[in-house]
Amino acid sequence: MKQRTHTCGELTEQQIGERVILQGWVKKRRDLGQVIFIDLRDRSGHVQIVFNEEIDSKALSQAEDVRSEFVLEVEGEVVKRDETNYNPKIPTGNIEVSIDHLEVLNPSKGLPFVIEDEAELNEDVRLKYRYLDLRRPKMQQTMILRSRTTKMIRDFLEEQSFMEIETPMLTKSTPEGARDYLVPSRVHEGDFYALPQSPQLFKQLLMVSGFERYFQIARCFRDEDLRADRQPEFTQVDIEASFLGKEELLKMMESLMSRMVKELRGVEVTAPFKRLTYDEAMNRFGSDKPDTRFGMELVDLSEQVKESGFKVFSSAIANGGVVKGICVKGIAESYSRKDLDNLGVFAEIYGAKGLAWLKVNAENEVKGPIAKFFDEEAQSNLIHTFDAEPGDVLFFAADKIQTVWDTLGALRTKFAKELKLIEPNTFDFLWVTQFPLLSYDEEEGRYAAEHHPFTRPVKEDEKMLDTNPEQVRAEAYDLVLNGYELGGGSQRIFERSLQEKMFKALGFSEEEAKEQFGFLLDAFEYGTPPHGGIALGLDRLVMILADRTNLRDTIAFPKTASASCLLTNAPSSVEEAKLDELSLKIKPKKKPENQ
Amino acid sequence: MKQRTHTCGELTEQQIGERVILQGWVKKRRDLGQVIFIDLRDRSGHVQIVFNEEIDSKALSQAEDVRSEFVLEVEGEVVKRDETNYNPKIPTGNIEVSIDHLEVLNPSKGLPFVIEDEAELNEDVRLKYRYLDLRRPKMQQTMILRSRTTKMIRDFLEEQSFMEIETPMLTKSTPEGARDYLVPSRVHEGDFYALPQSPQLFKQLLMVSGFERYFQIARCFRDEDLRADRQPEFTQVDIEASFLGKEELLKMMESLMSRMVKELRGVEVTAPFKRLTYDEAMNRFGSDKPDTRFGMELVDLSEQVKESGFKVFSSAIANGGVVKGICVKGIAESYSRKDLDNLGVFAEIYGAKGLAWLKVNAENEVKGPIAKFFDEEAQSNLIHTFDAEPGDVLFFAADKIQTVWDTLGALRTKFAKELKLIEPNTFDFLWVTQFPLLSYDEEEGRYAAEHHPFTRPVKEDEKMLDTNPEQVRAEAYDLVLNGYELGGGSQRIFERSLQEKMFKALGFSEEEAKEQFGFLLDAFEYGTPPHGGIALGLDRLVMILADRTNLRDTIAFPKTASASCLLTNAPSSVEEAKLDELSLKIKPKKKPENQ
Repeated sequence: MKQRTHTCGELTEQQIGERVILQGWVKKRRDLGQVIFIDLRDRSGHVQIVFNEEIDSKALSQAEDVRSEFVLEVEGEVVKRDETNYNPKIPTGNIEVSIDHLEVLNPSKGLPFVIEDEAELNEDVRLKYRYLDLRRPKMQQTMILRSRTTKMIRDFLEEQSFMEIETPMLTKSTPEGARDYLVPSRVHEGDFYALPQSPQLFKQLLMVSGFERYFQIARCFRDEDLRADRQPEFTQVDIEASFLGKEELLKMMESLMSRMVKELRGVEVTAPFKRLTYDEAMNRFGSDKPDTRFGMELVDLSEQVKESGFKVFSSAIANGGVVKGICVKGIAESYSRKDLDNLGVFAEIYGAKGLAWLKVNAENEVKGPIAKFFDEEAQSNLIHTFDAEPGDVLFFAADKIQTVWDTLGALRTKFAKELKLIEPNTFDFLWVTQFPLLSYDEEEGRYAAEHHPFTRPVKEDEKMLDTNPEQVRAEAYDLVLNGYELGGGSQRIFERSLQEKMFKALGFSEEEAKEQFGFLLDAFEYGTPPHGGIALGLDRLVMILADRTNLRDTIAFPKTASASCLLTNAPSSVEEAKLDELSLKIKPKKKPENQ
Repeated sequence: MKQRTHTCGELTEQQIGERVILQGWVKKRRDLGQVIFIDLRDRSGHVQIVFNEEIDSKALSQAEDVRSEFVLEVEGEVVKRDETNYNPKIPTGNIEVSIDHLEVLNPSKGLPFVIEDEAELNEDVRLKYRYLDLRRPKMQQTMILRSRTTKMIRDFLEEQSFMEIETPMLTKSTPEGARDYLVPSRVHEGDFYALPQSPQLFKQLLMVSGFERYFQIARCFRDEDLRADRQPEFTQVDIEASFLGKEELLKMMESLMSRMVKELRGVEVTAPFKRLTYDEAMNRFGSDKPDTRFGMELVDLSEQVKESGFKVFSSAIANGGVVKGICVKGIAESYSRKDLDNLGVFAEIYGAKGLAWLKVNAENEVKGPIAKFFDEEAQSNLIHTFDAEPGDVLFFAADKIQTVWDTLGALRTKFAKELKLIEPNTFDFLWVTQFPLLSYDEEEGRYAAEHHPFTRPVKEDEKMLDTNPEQVRAEAYDLVLNGYELGGGSQRIFERSLQEKMFKALGFSEEEAKEQFGFLLDAFEYGTPPHGGIALGLDRLVMILADRTNLRDTIAFPKTASASCLLTNAPSSVEEAKLDELSLKIKPKKKPENQ
């Protein structure tokens, strides 16, 4: 192998007359008998190379055996193409390279699929042959974008005096949060490490150490049942700062986001970003990560319909629930009664028992299955409350408040997509603030931290930690982009007494708190500075920046929904001897009897 | 908490007259009754702040309760110090800040040790209170240096068109290499992931994908019994490139190293770096990572002493071993007979049965326990071979060659340290090349890869892979700095047939090779480019750059020699229910009977 003089994609008319050595893959080959054209591809792009009798007959005859995805080394002269053959679609389109020397560095057998974006592929096949899937132009671009994104984040944070510090991967299992991945210890019989769900405790300890501004692009792990947008291992941009107030932190993140979107997508976004409190986000959009690129806000009807003859509404309210609705503009004609009734099935996904609807007709009357429960005045009130016009359809959900939020929140998003209400190339950032600090976990019969146990309560709510824990708001903030939660953070507790109060509110006994988090409680007594931070999901950020919808497309070697790697077949069985070293034995789970 | 206007360390005479807000830790406090001085410290350095009656009596009285490591927020005016009080040792030494407003952000109780470099601390105490240990100036500087080093590496590699791509942490266990850390799968009963020992397979697959230039600062894991310079998890600068020959790769690494040493230590190093073949390194220095900052090279004496009357020598040679020696200049006076005899114990660590020595006296005669075995001519020959002078001591090791290398290699280093032969601030880089591809593993009764199974044999040796495997040299190279192996790499096999031959030489059956590495063999058939790479141990690199000798001092939260974290107490026991979910049971190891 020689050293190449140029990459394929960089050749232009400037190199005409020069001798070049190129290396790359055969993207396409056209054999016209006397002449063979090959599009030679490398990471930088591709260029047309030409073989013919006049240039070199040996190279031509070698080129006859070449096939797609062979790896070639070629030498020749850059020449101008006939103007009629210019290809304006590619940067190298005005030139080609006349090849007088060809070496096949490695052949390729027939591929399981063609290396094109357009290929419609089963995802399992893509994952099994991930090394080929990653050759497709869009996958290449996504990985390049990911690499540029992380570089940009690092450059930005280091400009702001943040230091990257690595924290352990083999760490301690804690009872809070999601399920840990465990790693058996060979040396300490029967003991386990846990892979980190986040570097939370270590980054707080680094604040105790006085590093003041820490970040890490950190791998994190959660052993949860996977959804489309989850992976067992994921990457987090993890940031923590001392002596930096919430407002300054948010402002800094806004600069980072603005710069990123500008440099990577050429779009200007306005800072400061919008802010919504959690209550506002839920009440207006039915979501704590609302997509505010379109309206269709939730309308509260509880007061208005509580006396209506429609039992579903009145009894929902009587049972402590609510009735809310959204107005979808101008679909009365295009959505049939059947279409609308079918949305009930969609609503059920979110726990609703059904979805009532009314069309507004040309006479400004409401029509539909439940119209009969509303007299003329009630109808007119409804139209007024919804600010509805002829042609609109009104949807209603009646249930406990969380179900109503979830249902209408999802319905809004569904319609926005169906009706193409979303401007492309829009980056709609917003902050959601003042989350509840705690939520009651019915199953466990205790309060759980909404964010995590180290989040600071809002100052004026601190006194309710003992008395009305569910009313305490957190000094927490989520960064939302286009309806996705990009990440979240909070100002942290840094006083032992307050942290102990928090553990108590979470139902920890004093001993449990000490056993699990004693080192943190101790650390808080040795001069811990006020601190706070944020963590962003890098995979999701890249997904949005790359205009993709599948999180797996942003990860070089992702896992399937059952946490398998189809390429390497991980996880897999291991020899008995290895388990013996770990003092472990496999004990098959009991199957539930009725299966 | 307010927003600080300055950091402590940045204040100079330029700010005289300005009002500033500072936040930081009490480094030192001197209470003179009417006036209190505090050295206030943050990450940037420290500055003297002053409280007295005239400035503000309330602040003065608050300052009376302040103790070491309290976290303070202070406001006041920057003033010039009396010239007699200038402290030239610190950048802020000409000024101080007159404080009229003090807020204690967080107090601190008495510390288990003082925050000073000089504190002589038991390492276990340092690790238990790592968050305090990390406040010590040298630890701060080391972490800052580490952060700068990784930033510099990233900047350099991205200038060279390398992309950072993340590879999985939950991957497949393979039988080659060190012992894996295993991670039980919950979803796939009885199956395990392995934490990566390196991203080797994935980085090669990325080459198959056409990314051409990949790097990653990657966490790697080995479940081995730990020595002082090993950690169960460590960080590797992992680099792989296609279409880049060995010479170009080595040259690039030399630029990176030169830039790093220049920017971080202000030292110019000369490129190209020296190169030694493996054979040369072993024969001259007794080590494949020789410290060439000093001479004291190994001298081969086998021919010369094989007929000597000293049985230890003659029988070592008769048994296929060798006799080699080193000459240590000018220590005959200062090392007593007892000192020299005691070195036998040192030699035993390396497997030698003893260590013979001879002193060269003023008359150019050799004296010592074995002198009697050498007649006048033999003595003179010895002195000549060693190029020895009066006052030197000659050391001899007689054993199988590896033991002789190990013993004398270690002895050289020991003397270089004792005799302070090493120039400080020297960065002596060199490449060791042409390692053996395979070595015979007596225990396993098969050949093992010296580097790893993906390393390319030297072209002209390929044909010996079937016939004389132990003679095949590898296209491998190690980067050595000051006697430490910084890292190593190789050009890789990229052809299925050659890779299969290699697996065969390692004793894999066709089925085993397919079962373990089938995906790689398959990948090689779809147009895999020639590629190679290198990996550097970041922890060790930082250790050398920071002039430290303990690898743990370069890692924020390291593990002990028994792979424990003394701060968090990882690993620890987990609830039975968690093991049930993983279908695992702890099965205590059988103790060996005679214990």
